[in-house]
Amino acid sequence: MTTLKKTPLTRLGRLPKRGSYDRDVINAILDATPLCHVGHLIEGRPVVTPTCHWRVDDAVYWHGSRRSRGLLAAENNDVCLTVTHLDGLVLARSGFHHSANYRSVMVFGQPQIVDDKAAKHEALEHFIEGLFPGRWDTLRPPSRKEMNATTVLRLPIEEASAKVRTGPPSDLEEDESLPIWAGVIPLAPAAGALIPCEHNAPELPVPDHVTGYGESLPRP
Amino acid sequence: MTTLKKTPLTRLGRLPKRGSYDRDVINAILDATPLCHVGHLIEGRPVVTPTCHWRVDDAVYWHGSRRSRGLLAAENNDVCLTVTHLDGLVLARSGFHHSANYRSVMVFGQPQIVDDKAAKHEALEHFIEGLFPGRWDTLRPPSRKEMNATTVLRLPIEEASAKVRTGPPSDLEEDESLPIWAGVIPLAPAAGALIPCEHNAPELPVPDHVTGYGESLPRP
Repeated sequence: MTTLKKTPLTRLGRLPKRGSYDRDVINAILDATPLCHVGHLIEGRPVVTPTCHWRVDDAVYWHGSRRSRGLLAAENNDVCLTVTHLDGLVLARSGFHHSANYRSVMVFGQPQIVDDKAAKHEALEHFIEGLFPGRWDTLRPPSRKEMNATTVLRLPIEEASAKVRTGPPSDLEEDESLPIWAGVIPLAPAAGALIPCEHNAPELPVPDHVTGYGESLPRP
Repeated sequence: MTTLKKTPLTRLGRLPKRGSYDRDVINAILDATPLCHVGHLIEGRPVVTPTCHWRVDDAVYWHGSRRSRGLLAAENNDVCLTVTHLDGLVLARSGFHHSANYRSVMVFGQPQIVDDKAAKHEALEHFIEGLFPGRWDTLRPPSRKEMNATTVLRLPIEEASAKVRTGPPSDLEEDESLPIWAGVIPLAPAAGALIPCEHNAPELPVPDHVTGYGESLPRP
């Protein structure tokens, strides 16, 4: 188990019982969804942008249009990239003890643009392959124009922490016998029926990386 | 239809085809999940904290421990509260045109603490009732100690915008006939089988606001 260093920011709200600096815990949370929220400053004000991220080894990546103000504002500046899974609603016998089950990670640092052409190409390949193994080589390769229009940011996972809540409500002991239903409503993403593009040829097989996507999702 | 004013921040990344300042669109996105991400500054650095929010009329609320550094840092300071639903993954015939379907809202402003005791009590009641209609009156009422330990923040929805992507991939026309499966994998949260607290009396009925929660979720 590799453990990251604690810093004032990674300690934020990380009570001992819910916090973790274990790299495996952090990686698993980052890898379990493509959706993250990146906080950065624009003209001194915080802005939180939803985007897709992916991880390669000890860094997290995201990308966007070369002209994106959010990406420009993030490069070489402080950001906080947060990933959260809402795993359930926790119903207690008092309003105060209602809670949520969740897994979240915050990564702090200053992302840098992936300038090197081969490294950028490889990073984008990782993005697609991480979601849909085997898909990249089946695609029409990226054009120079597309590559130039895309900016990829890389943030090393050095200052990061996880926070996790699981389990039943923690009511006051004297509340536990009250005749009030308490418990957990588990939540999880589910994949719905595929919507093929109308331009797909009718005989086109659905690749395993598409049918398999939903199978990899945690089912409630 | 009430439309909010555009500002430099609410225009961020809001291309005309995907952006909206319609209050009904914004409200519907805020109301469809309790999970938000709040961006605020701590010692000049952006921090993005996942938390639960709720809306009452033209304001959005969240809460936490009175000692929470995130809440203290947010009060009367600039924040960005972002809510995102990842509705699907969009697979195109080139890596570049892969995308995601989503609905997101950013709300900017300076939240204030709800100091008035009655207003704070009412706000917390709205939080529980918004998730589980009818539950508040069945609960053990909040104690003075619990109320004092809780801080509620209120942010008027004045500077806000929505961003939405729906529909199939937008491939280049010349790519549409390539023999590559393209389409959408829809994603949506689903509620799993309830996990009753072990202290529930065996004969305790499951209230409608618990069994009904999953029914209100969009099903994939």
